[in-house]
Amino acid sequence: MIEPLIYDPEKNILRILDQRLLPFEEKYVIAESGYDVARAIKDMVLRGAPLIAVAGAYGILMEAKKGAGKEELMNVMDALRKSRPTAVNLFNIMKVLEDVLHETDDLKSAIEQKVEEFVAHEKEIYDRIGEAGSTLIPEDSTVITYCNTGFLATIGIGTAIGVIYRAFQKEKIKEVIVPETRPYLQGARLTIYEMRKLGIPHRLITDNTAPFLMEMGKVDFVVVGADRVVLNGDVANKIGTLSLALAAREFHVPFYTALPISTIDFRSRDFSQVKIEERGSEEVIFIRGKPITYPDTPTYHYAFDITPSRFINGYITEEGIFESMDELVKKIGQGK
Amino acid sequence: MIEPLIYDPEKNILRILDQRLLPFEEKYVIAESGYDVARAIKDMVLRGAPLIAVAGAYGILMEAKKGAGKEELMNVMDALRKSRPTAVNLFNIMKVLEDVLHETDDLKSAIEQKVEEFVAHEKEIYDRIGEAGSTLIPEDSTVITYCNTGFLATIGIGTAIGVIYRAFQKEKIKEVIVPETRPYLQGARLTIYEMRKLGIPHRLITDNTAPFLMEMGKVDFVVVGADRVVLNGDVANKIGTLSLALAAREFHVPFYTALPISTIDFRSRDFSQVKIEERGSEEVIFIRGKPITYPDTPTYHYAFDITPSRFINGYITEEGIFESMDELVKKIGQGK
Repeated sequence: MIEPLIYDPEKNILRILDQRLLPFEEKYVIAESGYDVARAIKDMVLRGAPLIAVAGAYGILMEAKKGAGKEELMNVMDALRKSRPTAVNLFNIMKVLEDVLHETDDLKSAIEQKVEEFVAHEKEIYDRIGEAGSTLIPEDSTVITYCNTGFLATIGIGTAIGVIYRAFQKEKIKEVIVPETRPYLQGARLTIYEMRKLGIPHRLITDNTAPFLMEMGKVDFVVVGADRVVLNGDVANKIGTLSLALAAREFHVPFYTALPISTIDFRSRDFSQVKIEERGSEEVIFIRGKPITYPDTPTYHYAFDITPSRFINGYITEEGIFESMDELVKKIGQGK
Repeated sequence: MIEPLIYDPEKNILRILDQRLLPFEEKYVIAESGYDVARAIKDMVLRGAPLIAVAGAYGILMEAKKGAGKEELMNVMDALRKSRPTAVNLFNIMKVLEDVLHETDDLKSAIEQKVEEFVAHEKEIYDRIGEAGSTLIPEDSTVITYCNTGFLATIGIGTAIGVIYRAFQKEKIKEVIVPETRPYLQGARLTIYEMRKLGIPHRLITDNTAPFLMEMGKVDFVVVGADRVVLNGDVANKIGTLSLALAAREFHVPFYTALPISTIDFRSRDFSQVKIEERGSEEVIFIRGKPITYPDTPTYHYAFDITPSRFINGYITEEGIFESMDELVKKIGQGK
């Protein structure tokens, strides 16, 4: 399987797979600094909430190994936080690393240790998410997932796609339905690419087709990822997730979100104080370089939407499956 | 305003605006026979349930004027019916013209008269639909419409867009939100084109953004067209309509469909016996000639979905607004 991030400790550089070119081309760009990583995130070279947290951690590591001081590291952390304001995993690891700055003066080795711990933990949790979630999927299922949450979005087998992959290994998957995920087409480009690499039977649909398939009874299960979950259980995820959740509830299809605990924003009760990222019009209007209408057409372009907890049957995590965030908080406490 | 169909009675040809090239190019193709019209419909040169019915009528007229006999005309009617199996307006006018074949031997002048009557009637009803529907729209409204239902989809000001245009003339429209309408992008290409020509403020969104806008309270009214309405009130319309209807109900936004009575299938109680058109994968995978993923990826490509009557607040027609199909049938009888 191709790796979306390759850190070279000798050269102290991070190779980042340019996901904008997939599935047509497999090419890495090289980041030599935390700012390079922030720019790569902003430019969508890489995406996936868990993956950008790992890339951000490497960004800080590269700076620390170059001998950056506390203030410089704080500035890099700020730049990284601004690169993708909705994804909370990145904020969570930045908080961990920021705490290190206040605890020691041997920044380099302390940061190195924290990043190594984080990466080791990340590498291991997706198998647990996949195993937990796979138990929910009925035999011979047609499953809808959304956007891309697999080995391109994490440094493991993924969240929602990890669940599907594990269920596929257990021979429970008949077919995976992949909505294209406009405007960035992560479904068409990245999830289809992953389905091929994994050998899982699949079909591409336009995003607006999913509710009709559910109405016709052609879908047994929906599992998506998450970019941020708040304490009331609402989920911010790729724009279009809400539409799937509405249809799933109406047509009695189970709807789950799969996420590492690091995706939970334990400091926010709800989304009233959380900024939902808006992006530029050109991403809506241009597809693979070609305009679909007048280039100066005004747009709304929200990168994420918010799915209320009442539409969500459960949260699949490395600590098990929870029916509500209250239940999760009761078991694991207010974060780590 | 540009006309989507121009019939030349001298040359007995039909000029059809090639809507596949909009908004970038305004170019007509010439149809010289009923089969040319059927091919143009199949190839999406033109679309819009009311418009293709008119084009189909001209297709039969051209043949009749060339002296075609009953059997030949029946064959052309068959070809036309097959060109777009979901749209019922075309079936309805074909039925009217087929009845003529059995009533007279002077086919040419009888067909000519029926087609003229039909076109005259069509030219007049959209103003009535627009006027009726405009009374429903609150002051200072942000309205979502879908696909394209304006002067490119009819030989008048349109159905749903007719409603919006009339409300705009009454200064009730703040903004029209236009989902792009994948895969064919009728929203991005045709409705944005119409909004510009009509001078109505507008914004383009990806289809999957509409539910989130409704959740945030940014939408006051949804009005869509219809490709076929059956007696239980369910509506077949462009794929993606169902998603809007689900969100509108959940977030308490009024949801109406605007249609000429000719869109009603008075012979079907429900959609169980109606074929929903499926189209080729290439329309999903290629956008403006460029693939968005591996070209051999399997797809589901339904051209339409079915919105259950329980999600529909009312039906806006040239005979007024009806809360249910039962009410409509009571008033106007079982069709004409």
